[in-house]
Amino acid sequence: MRLKELSERSGVSTATIKYYLRERLLPPGERVSATQAEYGEEHLRRLRLVRALIQVGRVPVATAREVLETAEDESLSQNTRMGAAVWALPHGSEPAEDDPETEEARRQVDALLERLGWTYGQELGDTSPAYGMLVAAIASLARLGYPHETDHLLLHARLAAELAVADLDLVEKYGGSPTERIEAVVALTVLYEPVLLALRRLAETEESGRRFTD
Amino acid sequence: MRLKELSERSGVSTATIKYYLRERLLPPGERVSATQAEYGEEHLRRLRLVRALIQVGRVPVATAREVLETAEDESLSQNTRMGAAVWALPHGSEPAEDDPETEEARRQVDALLERLGWTYGQELGDTSPAYGMLVAAIASLARLGYPHETDHLLLHARLAAELAVADLDLVEKYGGSPTERIEAVVALTVLYEPVLLALRRLAETEESGRRFTD
Repeated sequence: MRLKELSERSGVSTATIKYYLRERLLPPGERVSATQAEYGEEHLRRLRLVRALIQVGRVPVATAREVLETAEDESLSQNTRMGAAVWALPHGSEPAEDDPETEEARRQVDALLERLGWTYGQELGDTSPAYGMLVAAIASLARLGYPHETDHLLLHARLAAELAVADLDLVEKYGGSPTERIEAVVALTVLYEPVLLALRRLAETEESGRRFTD
Repeated sequence: MRLKELSERSGVSTATIKYYLRERLLPPGERVSATQAEYGEEHLRRLRLVRALIQVGRVPVATAREVLETAEDESLSQNTRMGAAVWALPHGSEPAEDDPETEEARRQVDALLERLGWTYGQELGDTSPAYGMLVAAIASLARLGYPHETDHLLLHARLAAELAVADLDLVEKYGGSPTERIEAVVALTVLYEPVLLALRRLAETEESGRRFTD
């Protein structure tokens, strides 16, 4: 398909598609003349993922490129590609300061991951943004004097694992090439975050309404 | 305690505390001389909540003030105060456009809430930011061509409800006045969001690593 059709089918303007091409978020089309290129289904798929990362995930362009390059690097094993792509997703928290709460939070997170048997992320290095985000979040709870008990954290981890199993089941159900499946995991990870947060806020409101009926 | 002690005990600079006082995020201290005021434990507690909202939740100052005013409005019933405070928390998504995907997502969300029996939020009006965030997130999934099956959404809702029960249990365990408990629910709602997202990302990496072992 030509650029115009790619734009119509994806709902992304031709100007934005050209920008993504320049920024190497999309691979170039196959050139058919001096001014025209032909695009395939893989461009459409990639465009959806780029929009998921940038519009919903608010991932910076440079990071999106890094995530996509990792996801599609066929020199890496499939699990490295998938793990590393999710692992490279940025987070909103400031990098953890080196204060006593951060040190304590790091110990707590390491103990939690060990207890859960979650060793895969550690193989990717302890600089995972998700790991840093977790340490920073727990340090904030401590610094602000709010409870952050191991049982409460374990419950969150157990439910997160249940969601991950369901997401991967969904990806396997839809099938596709290894690259397509890796991209789908990245997309679902990003796109279901607001779903989960919104449902949790609705649930907090609901549960509060049930308990406090004065 | 004087401003200096409030600053030391909270870890918030005196300049920032003065800014919060001017912005009415903190109630004024009890004036003891022309230049000095006395602050109590409730100021310390409130300061922790303000930091949770602004630093971790990235809530704008005006919204934080609205959330806090609702939480402390003793003319409202306790469940209205608690529900409305969580309900007033802002979200990152753009307001839903009025397109076919948004209409369909709204129908899907309404059906989901009815099936869950979550009626409390509806009493607060259908303009809840969390409701809008959920509609926008599901419309994004549809627009980008990713799966958003009812069973998958129900699982997220069920797990969100489990988290809400655990959060409210924690708040009730710690006790305190109605206002303290309402503030704790708001704080836990905001502060555990990055914990949950970080754990989910780690879980996605872990589960991917387990399944794709080529």
